[in-house]
Amino acid sequence: MGDRTGDRTIPESSQTATRFLLGDGGIPTATAETHDWLTRNGAEQRLEVARVPFSAMDRWSFQPEDGRLAHESGRFFSIEGLHVRTNFGWRRDWIQPIIVQPEIGFLGLIVKEFDGVLHVLAQAKAEPGNINAVQLSPTLQATRSNYTGVHRGSKVRFIEYFNGTRPSRILVDVLQSEQGAWFLRKRNRNMVVEVFDDLPEHPNFRWLTVAQLRAMLHHDNVVNMDLRTVLACVPTAVERDRADDVLARLPEGSFQARLLHSFIGAGTPANNMNSLLSWISDVRARREFVQRGRPLPDIERSGWIRRDDGIEHEEKKYFDVFGVTVATSDREVNSWMQPLLSPANNGLLALLVKDIGGTLHALVQLRTEAGGMDVAELAPTVHCQPDNYADAPEEFRPAYVDYVLNVPRSQVRYDAWHSEEGGRFYRNENRYMLIEVPADFDASAAPDHRWMTFDQITYLLGHSHYVNIHVRSIIACASAVYTRTAG
Amino acid sequence: MGDRTGDRTIPESSQTATRFLLGDGGIPTATAETHDWLTRNGAEQRLEVARVPFSAMDRWSFQPEDGRLAHESGRFFSIEGLHVRTNFGWRRDWIQPIIVQPEIGFLGLIVKEFDGVLHVLAQAKAEPGNINAVQLSPTLQATRSNYTGVHRGSKVRFIEYFNGTRPSRILVDVLQSEQGAWFLRKRNRNMVVEVFDDLPEHPNFRWLTVAQLRAMLHHDNVVNMDLRTVLACVPTAVERDRADDVLARLPEGSFQARLLHSFIGAGTPANNMNSLLSWISDVRARREFVQRGRPLPDIERSGWIRRDDGIEHEEKKYFDVFGVTVATSDREVNSWMQPLLSPANNGLLALLVKDIGGTLHALVQLRTEAGGMDVAELAPTVHCQPDNYADAPEEFRPAYVDYVLNVPRSQVRYDAWHSEEGGRFYRNENRYMLIEVPADFDASAAPDHRWMTFDQITYLLGHSHYVNIHVRSIIACASAVYTRTAG
Repeated sequence: MGDRTGDRTIPESSQTATRFLLGDGGIPTATAETHDWLTRNGAEQRLEVARVPFSAMDRWSFQPEDGRLAHESGRFFSIEGLHVRTNFGWRRDWIQPIIVQPEIGFLGLIVKEFDGVLHVLAQAKAEPGNINAVQLSPTLQATRSNYTGVHRGSKVRFIEYFNGTRPSRILVDVLQSEQGAWFLRKRNRNMVVEVFDDLPEHPNFRWLTVAQLRAMLHHDNVVNMDLRTVLACVPTAVERDRADDVLARLPEGSFQARLLHSFIGAGTPANNMNSLLSWISDVRARREFVQRGRPLPDIERSGWIRRDDGIEHEEKKYFDVFGVTVATSDREVNSWMQPLLSPANNGLLALLVKDIGGTLHALVQLRTEAGGMDVAELAPTVHCQPDNYADAPEEFRPAYVDYVLNVPRSQVRYDAWHSEEGGRFYRNENRYMLIEVPADFDASAAPDHRWMTFDQITYLLGHSHYVNIHVRSIIACASAVYTRTAG
Repeated sequence: MGDRTGDRTIPESSQTATRFLLGDGGIPTATAETHDWLTRNGAEQRLEVARVPFSAMDRWSFQPEDGRLAHESGRFFSIEGLHVRTNFGWRRDWIQPIIVQPEIGFLGLIVKEFDGVLHVLAQAKAEPGNINAVQLSPTLQATRSNYTGVHRGSKVRFIEYFNGTRPSRILVDVLQSEQGAWFLRKRNRNMVVEVFDDLPEHPNFRWLTVAQLRAMLHHDNVVNMDLRTVLACVPTAVERDRADDVLARLPEGSFQARLLHSFIGAGTPANNMNSLLSWISDVRARREFVQRGRPLPDIERSGWIRRDDGIEHEEKKYFDVFGVTVATSDREVNSWMQPLLSPANNGLLALLVKDIGGTLHALVQLRTEAGGMDVAELAPTVHCQPDNYADAPEEFRPAYVDYVLNVPRSQVRYDAWHSEEGGRFYRNENRYMLIEVPADFDASAAPDHRWMTFDQITYLLGHSHYVNIHVRSIIACASAVYTRTAG
């Protein structure tokens, strides 16, 4: 992690990381052009997606051994049963379907300087579950199957800059989790590399300045989950002697300036890193969390209904699983079938922020999810599908949901809808919010929540299994807030 | 992690940590007295251990559901089947028995200053698998079952200093893995706390200075695994302006001084932390590593033999599992039965160290183990039971085994036998070695190995799942090498 001072991490390649943080230069927004390009790509990469019964799925079938829904190659992913037992919360013992994909996915973003301005190479990528036909994606989005060739398709573009074949400077290289509610211990390798070669042009790829890319985060369902998580992992700490320079760019006392101040580590944390890490160890050690694979038919014991046209929960909660057939003209393979998971309702992901002693802090919680790799990861203040808790006893209703749903607009610093990975999730849309609360806001009643600076969160993003996928999305969204969008 | 400079971590409680590092004051060794005390305790805590057939085990039985050997309460641990599939190494697809213990154990060490000298409160603890009747253990060694009372026994002594009931200063609080070859994703919470209360005396507990404790690491099978891992997690980085002071205590140019120089982070690493973390991500992403629970009887497909008197492998390799009955007069419960795992042969854990540019570096490898939490953790240069590879093709023989077994004594800086956790493993004895290799020693042929400073290793010990249990043991042993044993 190169040079570290205080609670901050200054990466080896800190020059590039700081320029990434600031996103300076070029035309700050190119929203209309980017939308046009996405629309053109959406037409060209058109995916035709139709539901099919499980029994009609080519190459996929329920395995005699344990009933899991798997591909004939044994690769890609499967839908299996998972038994979870805990000693806390509303539901403490259940069996659910879950996506099992042991291999680590590959999310890679290329950055490059043009005329002194840092650009990222965004991809317009179609996925069967996408709400818009295509969304902005990382340069590289691949499974290990992709790059070892199990897909029997074409080679993955630009992979040579991520595997050492062509020279590049690594800014980010860390394994991070995906949604633990739907995936069993799934991780992706998040990489950002700076390249120095001239890269070939391709209609599915487009250079955007960092600011142009972030501006797209103000639009619903345009920047995909994979790009959001990669963006979040770029270090944000700045050497103390540069902090004043960096902050002088934004109006003093503005929310933008206070947010950036917290990201660059210029402030004083209310909780030091030692105490935060100890809190994480404590919660992980105290919570009982037993995951055990089960035959898929056992999910029926917990109210799941299996039919040929799909799996759903009898209370119409959580999610459905069904098969689709996907036809395309532009992909590694021309058509395929696969299961998709369709969340039954929308998620609410809200991060409350507050000034403590002149430094902006975010209220994170330690949240356990069925398929989590470790017992708990840091999650937004509110992280739930509220409808799943409609009939929950008051004591088990997630903290701050009502506060967030009724918060005055004047406190809302960011509010947009984004979708999760369209390769696995069907039209899943979640609301991401950044909300400022007054200084007298008291969080002491929520024992699983703690105040952290954004710098502390991004420091932990240098390691695996601390910060969950939704906090990472909000970190990316927050970067769209502090980035100057006017020259 | 308090204040960090360079690649080093200076803990909040850096004063105490530095004093722990140096282990100054008091009588440096008390070996005879400590042995006497252990012998007395061994007589008083006498455990009578006898093998029993599985069918005679009280409260333990093979579950109809999947054949696992489990306790009637569903707690403690169980012996289950695990299917592992990889894309590298000699064995790539096998089913084995494994200990499943989802709950996180608790290993806590109390330190306290007496007359300006830091002491640790060691426990003389008997375990059924111990080679000596009792070994030096942490102050607190408990399962969650212990402290939630499932054992139906007495309360765990001194737990109030670890759970916040009584005031203490936390020096270490991190989850670390156990042996992945034998345990499925087992972790322990490693804690070191400094206390300020006067503690009651108890015949099973004894205050030792840090140097006195470390001196015992030169003796075989005296310091148990749990104490070794906790000792290893104490931060060792020292502020740069104190480094000269610290090093002046040892003969200039001596191995002791060069070792301490590497531990305190005074040197220049050959590989920066960014590149090391990227290497870890790369190996974890590339290695296929699929773990899947299986019914226990399926282990027979991989050559395991199940009989009422035990489970063993047909090649007499790996390990046996059998039941024991344990009778005691001094424990939370008076007698019990349990399964134990007995490794079929001794392990060799050797860490090669080399001077690179004036800084001592250790050669670590990324090693995958069947039950590992993540794909791979840092392991010693040599980490294996050599007999398991007696018939391995040359290309799959672990690197450097022959080098270590034939190394001249003049290069051996540490060499002792230690045993693994006697609560699970029956008389398992492993050889731990620290070996210095000449400057022209070339490790470039071993692609899974990297040179790291000891400071870099102890920095990573501030987080989970980087450094495996055997490296932690060697880190503890190394502290016995650099600690002054003459006043």
